[in-house]
Amino acid sequence: MRIAVLGIGLIGGSIGLAARTRAGASVRGYDPDPDVRARAVALGAIDEQADDIAGAVADAEVVFVAAPVGKLLNAVMQALAAAGPDCVVTDVGSTKRMLAEAGSDERFIGGHPLAGAETSGVEHARAELFDGATWYLTPARGSTAGVLYERLHRLLSSFGARPTAIDAATHDRLMACVSHLPHVLANLLVAQASSLLEGEGSERLPAVGPSFRDATRVAGANGAIWTDIYMSNREALADAIDELAGRLEQVRSWLAAGEDAAVAAWNERARSYREALLGAGLVGGAVHELRVSVPNRPGVIAEIALALGRAGVNIADMALSPSEDNRQGVVALWVAEDQRARAIELVGELGFPVAQA
Amino acid sequence: MRIAVLGIGLIGGSIGLAARTRAGASVRGYDPDPDVRARAVALGAIDEQADDIAGAVADAEVVFVAAPVGKLLNAVMQALAAAGPDCVVTDVGSTKRMLAEAGSDERFIGGHPLAGAETSGVEHARAELFDGATWYLTPARGSTAGVLYERLHRLLSSFGARPTAIDAATHDRLMACVSHLPHVLANLLVAQASSLLEGEGSERLPAVGPSFRDATRVAGANGAIWTDIYMSNREALADAIDELAGRLEQVRSWLAAGEDAAVAAWNERARSYREALLGAGLVGGAVHELRVSVPNRPGVIAEIALALGRAGVNIADMALSPSEDNRQGVVALWVAEDQRARAIELVGELGFPVAQA
Repeated sequence: MRIAVLGIGLIGGSIGLAARTRAGASVRGYDPDPDVRARAVALGAIDEQADDIAGAVADAEVVFVAAPVGKLLNAVMQALAAAGPDCVVTDVGSTKRMLAEAGSDERFIGGHPLAGAETSGVEHARAELFDGATWYLTPARGSTAGVLYERLHRLLSSFGARPTAIDAATHDRLMACVSHLPHVLANLLVAQASSLLEGEGSERLPAVGPSFRDATRVAGANGAIWTDIYMSNREALADAIDELAGRLEQVRSWLAAGEDAAVAAWNERARSYREALLGAGLVGGAVHELRVSVPNRPGVIAEIALALGRAGVNIADMALSPSEDNRQGVVALWVAEDQRARAIELVGELGFPVAQA
Repeated sequence: MRIAVLGIGLIGGSIGLAARTRAGASVRGYDPDPDVRARAVALGAIDEQADDIAGAVADAEVVFVAAPVGKLLNAVMQALAAAGPDCVVTDVGSTKRMLAEAGSDERFIGGHPLAGAETSGVEHARAELFDGATWYLTPARGSTAGVLYERLHRLLSSFGARPTAIDAATHDRLMACVSHLPHVLANLLVAQASSLLEGEGSERLPAVGPSFRDATRVAGANGAIWTDIYMSNREALADAIDELAGRLEQVRSWLAAGEDAAVAAWNERARSYREALLGAGLVGGAVHELRVSVPNRPGVIAEIALALGRAGVNIADMALSPSEDNRQGVVALWVAEDQRARAIELVGELGFPVAQA
């Protein structure tokens, strides 16, 4: 099979590696940066480079457009213009309605692999990036191009991914809620905290708890990428903001009226929602949270992780919240339900107090 | 010095331990639960137990009220009624204006140690809980009880804490912004995601990124504690919600109008705010974020933490974001600026791709 990759960063490079090593495909790649093209060949991410989009796409059976979101539409249109009648063109952008509305071309099927957003550059590409990852596909409704969809689906499965068809509008609403909105809130929270400190004539946040740290970890995320993401999904994101504003107003009215029973019930519902989401979707199984109090010194994390690792207890997630002076802290550990008792035992043996959240 | 502790949980018990071992004080304790009182004596958290508040407070020079927020005001009033004229009464509640407004008694000085909210129970109490922790004190304006303030300040310093005077209203605004509001948002985000899934006829969140996981970690936090916290700080929290709503509306209008330059500038400001807050306030020094791609198997965290620990590189914070199927993930590590290069080198030697955020 002959494949083209347009844009050879982490995602494009990993597609090339996976296609070559797992699907036995031959991969031609194009990137606007000639150095990147040369590195991609040297790293084995592509078999050969092309000097332009048309050159890369010629004779390809599948074209992956892995350009930044802001340049995606243009690159997709160029790929479609250069592609043959039996070629499927897909992309890897994080919002989909924009492209679904732009193209009525049956050869185009939008795509979005949920993998690898954290690093960038072909240097970090690897064939196993998509192992077990959901890969959303947004075929146009009523599309007759079943053979193209089937080809793409089979190829992505061979990468180790899980191709999942989804309506483009639903996809964008989902991303607005679980990804774009948390980023917006992180940005707003740091702004609000900064403004509060400034108003108090203080420059320094005296101390904050883990909730603020967690909620603002992605504040000011990579601007080159995120401005494009916000703007490309701006309708769904504005809707998500409206919905959140309504929910905020509801909580505010309970607070203003002193309705503690309503607040308690709301908090209890949040607990069940979180458990349902955590159990079903976040790590592929029910996990249990433990909180361990530790001195914050080199080696303490290793001590805990090693004791658990040796016993075969997998740490599904972990967050360390240091005290203000960095001398002690709380490590939150998430472990599988059936490993919880063993984890508590092992951590206890190390002499650290452990509590169940 | 004779000290009374009313309410012997994690905080009350740790105060008792610190007072006994670090200040050489004798501690009398009261808790409504007789079993807790007996355990506190057995654990050495208090010297002796009393059967009621008046019995515990008699002859005390400092009284710590460590009751739950909802019962705090009543317990403080009882303590003041039983305390002598030269006794200082303080509390450890997470909101302060409520008490500042309630009492005009000069013997009362509100307090709030920023430590230990994550676990509960006297079993987890320890003398070093307050080491390096900010301990807010909210003396009434114009109070003449300087000798009482000085006594309390000196005692808390002997615990290893950093007593910091703050206006009660400012304290509550600060907590509303950096603690209570993030909790509200976590609750709202899980509710919104659940409602979205339900609307799509799906029960399962297909896949979410680390931003959602981080932002919702505290959703549905301990209801017995948090309903009280929300209600006791409801005015400041409502104000914080109003401010956030205004900021959300601003972002929404940029999105609606397609103003990408405004969005980019806003995101850039968030980056500087976060850096300023992270650098100055969160861990006591500038830290740098590294992102390491790892297979998610038992032992991998240990491998990284051990390599860094052996080399004396301290992990100030850490967050693991597993892929959907738990087979791989990204570990975010925060290390001190001057240990960054060494950390990158060490992780690289383990064969894991590492990127700088």
